[in-house]
Amino acid sequence: MSLLQSYKAIRSRTEIICQPLKTEDYVVQPVVDVSPPKWHLGHTTWFFETLVLKPFVVGYKEFDPNYNYVFNSYYETLGARVMRTDRGNLSRPSVEDVYRYRAYVDEAMHTLLSIDLETNVTDTVVLGLNHEEQHQELLWTDIKYILGHNPLFPAYADESGSGISSDNPAIMDFIDQEEGIYKIGHVNNAFCFDNELGAHRVFLEPFSISSRLVTNGEYVAFIEAGGYADHRWWHAEGLDWVRQKSIMAPMYWHLIDGKWHYYTLNGLKELDMSAEVCHVSFFEASAYAAWKGMRLPTEFEWEIASGKMKWGSRWEWTNSAYLPYPGFLKAEGAAGEYNGKFMVNQMALRGASEVTPPGHGRYTYRNFFHPHLRWQYTGIRLAK
Amino acid sequence: MSLLQSYKAIRSRTEIICQPLKTEDYVVQPVVDVSPPKWHLGHTTWFFETLVLKPFVVGYKEFDPNYNYVFNSYYETLGARVMRTDRGNLSRPSVEDVYRYRAYVDEAMHTLLSIDLETNVTDTVVLGLNHEEQHQELLWTDIKYILGHNPLFPAYADESGSGISSDNPAIMDFIDQEEGIYKIGHVNNAFCFDNELGAHRVFLEPFSISSRLVTNGEYVAFIEAGGYADHRWWHAEGLDWVRQKSIMAPMYWHLIDGKWHYYTLNGLKELDMSAEVCHVSFFEASAYAAWKGMRLPTEFEWEIASGKMKWGSRWEWTNSAYLPYPGFLKAEGAAGEYNGKFMVNQMALRGASEVTPPGHGRYTYRNFFHPHLRWQYTGIRLAK
Amino acid sequence: MSLLQSYKAIRSRTEIICQPLKTEDYVVQPVVDVSPPKWHLGHTTWFFETLVLKPFVVGYKEFDPNYNYVFNSYYETLGARVMRTDRGNLSRPSVEDVYRYRAYVDEAMHTLLSIDLETNVTDTVVLGLNHEEQHQELLWTDIKYILGHNPLFPAYADESGSGISSDNPAIMDFIDQEEGIYKIGHVNNAFCFDNELGAHRVFLEPFSISSRLVTNGEYVAFIEAGGYADHRWWHAEGLDWVRQKSIMAPMYWHLIDGKWHYYTLNGLKELDMSAEVCHVSFFEASAYAAWKGMRLPTEFEWEIASGKMKWGSRWEWTNSAYLPYPGFLKAEGAAGEYNGKFMVNQMALRGASEVTPPGHGRYTYRNFFHPHLRWQYTGIRLAK
Amino acid sequence: MSLLQSYKAIRSRTEIICQPLKTEDYVVQPVVDVSPPKWHLGHTTWFFETLVLKPFVVGYKEFDPNYNYVFNSYYETLGARVMRTDRGNLSRPSVEDVYRYRAYVDEAMHTLLSIDLETNVTDTVVLGLNHEEQHQELLWTDIKYILGHNPLFPAYADESGSGISSDNPAIMDFIDQEEGIYKIGHVNNAFCFDNELGAHRVFLEPFSISSRLVTNGEYVAFIEAGGYADHRWWHAEGLDWVRQKSIMAPMYWHLIDGKWHYYTLNGLKELDMSAEVCHVSFFEASAYAAWKGMRLPTEFEWEIASGKMKWGSRWEWTNSAYLPYPGFLKAEGAAGEYNGKFMVNQMALRGASEVTPPGHGRYTYRNFFHPHLRWQYTGIRLAK
Repeated sequence: MSLLQSYKAIRSRTEIICQPLKTEDYVVQPVVDVSPPKWHLGHTTWFFETLVLKPFVVGYKEFDPNYNYVFNSYYETLGARVMRTDRGNLSRPSVEDVYRYRAYVDEAMHTLLSIDLETNVTDTVVLGLNHEEQHQELLWTDIKYILGHNPLFPAYADESGSGISSDNPAIMDFIDQEEGIYKIGHVNNAFCFDNELGAHRVFLEPFSISSRLVTNGEYVAFIEAGGYADHRWWHAEGLDWVRQKSIMAPMYWHLIDGKWHYYTLNGLKELDMSAEVCHVSFFEASAYAAWKGMRLPTEFEWEIASGKMKWGSRWEWTNSAYLPYPGFLKAEGAAGEYNGKFMVNQMALRGASEVTPPGHGRYTYRNFFHPHLRWQYTGIRLAK
Repeated sequence: MSLLQSYKAIRSRTEIICQPLKTEDYVVQPVVDVSPPKWHLGHTTWFFETLVLKPFVVGYKEFDPNYNYVFNSYYETLGARVMRTDRGNLSRPSVEDVYRYRAYVDEAMHTLLSIDLETNVTDTVVLGLNHEEQHQELLWTDIKYILGHNPLFPAYADESGSGISSDNPAIMDFIDQEEGIYKIGHVNNAFCFDNELGAHRVFLEPFSISSRLVTNGEYVAFIEAGGYADHRWWHAEGLDWVRQKSIMAPMYWHLIDGKWHYYTLNGLKELDMSAEVCHVSFFEASAYAAWKGMRLPTEFEWEIASGKMKWGSRWEWTNSAYLPYPGFLKAEGAAGEYNGKFMVNQMALRGASEVTPPGHGRYTYRNFFHPHLRWQYTGIRLAK
Repeated sequence: MSLLQSYKAIRSRTEIICQPLKTEDYVVQPVVDVSPPKWHLGHTTWFFETLVLKPFVVGYKEFDPNYNYVFNSYYETLGARVMRTDRGNLSRPSVEDVYRYRAYVDEAMHTLLSIDLETNVTDTVVLGLNHEEQHQELLWTDIKYILGHNPLFPAYADESGSGISSDNPAIMDFIDQEEGIYKIGHVNNAFCFDNELGAHRVFLEPFSISSRLVTNGEYVAFIEAGGYADHRWWHAEGLDWVRQKSIMAPMYWHLIDGKWHYYTLNGLKELDMSAEVCHVSFFEASAYAAWKGMRLPTEFEWEIASGKMKWGSRWEWTNSAYLPYPGFLKAEGAAGEYNGKFMVNQMALRGASEVTPPGHGRYTYRNFFHPHLRWQYTGIRLAK
Repeated sequence: MSLLQSYKAIRSRTEIICQPLKTEDYVVQPVVDVSPPKWHLGHTTWFFETLVLKPFVVGYKEFDPNYNYVFNSYYETLGARVMRTDRGNLSRPSVEDVYRYRAYVDEAMHTLLSIDLETNVTDTVVLGLNHEEQHQELLWTDIKYILGHNPLFPAYADESGSGISSDNPAIMDFIDQEEGIYKIGHVNNAFCFDNELGAHRVFLEPFSISSRLVTNGEYVAFIEAGGYADHRWWHAEGLDWVRQKSIMAPMYWHLIDGKWHYYTLNGLKELDMSAEVCHVSFFEASAYAAWKGMRLPTEFEWEIASGKMKWGSRWEWTNSAYLPYPGFLKAEGAAGEYNGKFMVNQMALRGASEVTPPGHGRYTYRNFFHPHLRWQYTGIRLAK
């Protein structure tokens, strides 16, 4: 597939995700971590305009100079920007304006991508496409948050089925891994993010890792055993979080007439006990593991054992903090702000989720979130 | 005009105000005091459904039982409700749903108002219409806030002219009023709110009150004299507010290339020096008066002198706290929550503004806001 | 009594109040409204040093130039100052230092007051003495707060008795007052604060006012009737306060094994049902009155009827906001900051309390606090 | 030295540290991270009473049952406790009471330690002594904070000299370390904390580490180069911290008449340019390293290279998050809460500081703080 074809496919997929939305759904920001869908549509477009079209296309005329202020996410290098908490306060640009912006930039990108380009241009385009895929996943999680926290619990789509399996989960086996020096990080020539580079060796003591993720049914047992109230399983900051927010179950769970339900993109459903538990924070994942007398794997254990496990439906919390690899280097300019400046106070997640764009994940991929967050499709794998 | 005709006229005016909005403009809530326009559309409708149709129409079928939760503003009597800060987080019900809700309730109301009704029903309908008119004014002020705080400064309407006068303001005269016992409050049979009832006598010492309101040009003189930085003119809480929020001018004012501009519903314009200053807080109004060596009038002075002044373009801050009249009585039930429970920590404003619905105001009308608020069309009259 | 004698008597009384304290009790500030006792000792002294000795005594040498920063309360005119929330973070100046500061200033004041002085000097001294008396009352209330919120509930003094009466309260009579024009405010030549000046006439409609204050026993009936949970009796802001702070009784009340107790300066005691209820907020006072089908008096009604009531044991909440009298004038300089800048968002209290210094109160005295505060000796009188 | 002799020596050292304090200095808590000295005195005593005397001495009579509530720090296992933010609000127990408490517990401990004891008792005593040593360091840092943030800048001690060297710092050399598998963690039989156990192997890529710490003079160059304003050197959360708190230099630094000064325990002094920089946050340490084109070492690199470096004057920030070693196990009961529950969102520091008790540190010791904190004696070592 040519870069132009990839560009068209990925850009179009973003808009397909938004197709079932009403205009109103594009606008709101119920919590700071969730961005309005129209902001995602604009921000991913701004990325191409700012980092590709403006520097590399002579005579390119910006769509609207104010958009830099509106759609810059966190790039200090690229000037002032709307405060993150204010994204949901902006009724304009309208959804229609944002789609016009996309079409305008796409047209210029199509023209650009039809000619032979230098590597530094194509590299930035590839980064932009991977960036757009990351926002596709955020679109899924943010749309779910917006609809799932509405008192009317509207469904995103009516077709039922997704996320509801009826099979019994397999027995949880443990895979043993021998001690040794292992290579960590990205090595081939395919695209990866800068935080995967700096391949290096680690020594791992022998460990075992579970063959599958924890299920809803298994997690219910933790709840019923009083797990949320027993300080022994929790980090001190986790316990504060549980108490201050009155947390009693994963996000989207509701106890209705004594039965657990959860909000899915198809609406409110009875909880499927055999499905993998989802939308848990690092604190919850870690507490569950402690209650089982086990622990979460490190991101290195996960990477080494990944070939033997079936993964990809949930982002899996690891017990590794998100830190630079030994040879990590920040790029010059705005690209240098992509990952490095977030390497403190966050935990690494590995794998991919059911809403990660196909082909986007890989076993060296390093995702990261603050330990209390759970609006992503996060799950639990055990180690010992 | 029959009650049915009034109903139709007022309900339709609400929708006319919203006509120039884009769907996105209906949804956002940039600060807690501003409600999303679609919420106003729904809440005023919910008022008729809840206080008229459900109690008085046998067999009336609620449009959607969830709407009570969504559109109840502050009535404890009427059950749980969306937290005020969360109104802008709701993408649903959609704007289209809300208009369907209005049509549905209007149809039932039209039927009801075509027959002879008991007084307690018609009284509640009249209250509901006055309530809707109050929300019409809030629609204007909230729309202005939503558009005027957007970095793109979109205009609500393109026709220019409104708010821009080119006349020189008249000389500010002072009207003298003699001491005496005066009657305060509503006395005739026309509609009024409960907070105007309990007509009673007050004694007023002699006073003088200005014949017109303070202009932008006069207010600029206060700014240029360093008024915002001089503690002598300010209440202690006002000074805290000025410092914490870095207030340096009325809301919507912008100093661009050394020239004052302000946002109007027609977009960003150069400041009209002869227009009446607008969007000032009680703190600013009071500080301006102190700087002039004068004071704000009390609400009683205002009411007594109102016949001799031209008023109606700005809500005028008084130096009276919003408190019950001697004979004030709370009604039973939800209507009793209309005004009384707000009678602490707010200041009384008198008059009406250019966005008050025609015929809605009267000289006994008591408006009230917290002293730091200024998104209403508020102005300054002086007394001594 | 000469001014020198008054000076000595009042200054010495301040120190007598502090005598039973341990050094540690002088230092802490458990909430922002409560100041450390040593701060009161220093601030009252700073008042004389700054407003009397420095301007009027040639060659006076400041005790320590840093003390202006430490002991200025809220005077913008007099320079920068420790933030109010930080008063309890200062271990120095030590208690011993503060007493040395008092002795140093007292010595200079004794010398000054031994000679003939101009009126503007003696007026400021008299203001300083009245100011010191106000801080004597604050010392009582702040000491009570510091000890009464300590988990050990230490007694301030061991002698029992104070505040514990065994008599049955008198029947609550209502005193009728006729309508008429009445004179309000301070008129004779004795000292008063600037907020009492500007004597003026008010017209009062006929009213009745209770002959005595509400008792603990009567207030318990309100609690037992579910008064704190019933929205009908509360201002909206009062209800928010009750819910956010989980208020269920007056300050210092504790339900121990089903029996009401309260902290007194003699330690934790069983509640005396016949004593006047104390330490209630305006919100609670107003809710109690509403529950009884009555209201609180205005400060004007209170002043006019005061001659017929027995008052002085509790500061009595009125339903009047604290606002300037018609002729109110701010003094030039620091003295102008004494009262005027607080005339917003506070309610007027009338009377005096059992910890008001003897001779300090008078029937025109205007005390004021924010409506949620209750660490003062506040009580409830009813009107209708 | 017998355990009894150690007990006496360490307990007495705690009191010696407090000897120069005034009673007032024992009481205050200017920020949540700083505890009042009397709280440290009581809490370390409570540790012995609760974990040694009550479980192991038959017939031991608690000094005061309320003290468990007052002096429990964070042990959920051991019941309710004063909120951490309220420690500075307690004037009682008095300083004298706390010293009586120490004497009472010491007497019982002396008796206990005079007889032969089982290992589980002596182990807990040894833990308690190491715990007390940790609080000795906190006493130094908290006392410095209390005095150094007082507007009078009182000295803790008058003897000058400490912390002020006049030598030129040595050239900063870099020590090279070869790649290889290294053993990490505590292995011998001497005391260590549970977080050092679980010795295990790590693989280290080759690295270089600086022979000495960064000096004040070198850090001034970073400030003068505009380091605090240049986003390129900072973590995103670090930049937020710098901006919100207006951070412009290490804690205790003051620019007076164009010259840098800093508060030391001997009072305010001119900055010693050749001394090691102190009181920097992880954010600052990391930004400085980035500006130099280097990085901070990991805690594993630090531990392996420690034999070749001179360390012990500053706690050295590493770029390792504080996480459990592979074999980390929580103990049963209260001791299990000692370290494990803090293993999230904190960074590891290695070494010891000039106020660490002699003999307390070791090269496997793992200290940890949140990345924004800097009231400890923290410094910067570079790696590449």
